[in-house]
Amino acid sequence: MIHNLVASDRVETAAVYDRDGQKIGIIERLMLEKKTGTVAYAVVRCGGFFKADIHHYPLPWSSLRYNLGHNSYETDLTLEELQSGPSELDGESFDWGDRSPVYRYPRYWTV
Amino acid sequence: MIHNLVASDRVETAAVYDRDGQKIGIIERLMLEKKTGTVAYAVVRCGGFFKADIHHYPLPWSSLRYNLGHNSYETDLTLEELQSGPSELDGESFDWGDRSPVYRYPRYWTV
Repeated sequence: MIHNLVASDRVETAAVYDRDGQKIGIIERLMLEKKTGTVAYAVVRCGGFFKADIHHYPLPWSSLRYNLGHNSYETDLTLEELQSGPSELDGESFDWGDRSPVYRYPRYWTV
Repeated sequence: MIHNLVASDRVETAAVYDRDGQKIGIIERLMLEKKTGTVAYAVVRCGGFFKADIHHYPLPWSSLRYNLGHNSYETDLTLEELQSGPSELDGESFDWGDRSPVYRYPRYWTV
């Protein structure tokens, strides 16, 4: 059965792959517009074993294609493209809100 | 600072109160439309200490008002109104998808 819906806690922890099949990272959370209940962007955690290697990047929902069989997502963006964008979402200083630096990088929202 | 956005993992675990200030339950997860990235409904867990007392009810996003200070939500629906609606979302048989019984109870979506 094909479902039109997906649960938020299934999206969180889903892996994200780029167009070449390389794993980019894992969706850590979704940022929702409070009034409309629409996903503004997914926060993807990328990086390695050490905390200093971990970065968080925003990905617009429209750039993510769901792979039901693997409960994973595919995006046309590459890790390099993500890394050239916002990088201030890391660590404890993460800003949950509308002043988030992602808004300074509008190209993500036109994918 | 007032934020327009809220993180999905902050919504999950947020308490829900009815219009009389009575605690109804806790938001367990959000069900999202895969294509549009819009919340179809929130799944609210209600009930007590024993597993048999726990029930899950759907609540449309539009019926939830966010209380920033308490990271909680308020709804105009009462627990009794919820209990008169879908009750098949319980336990292991929970259906994540578009055949969910909530669709047989359209009145929730016209609140």
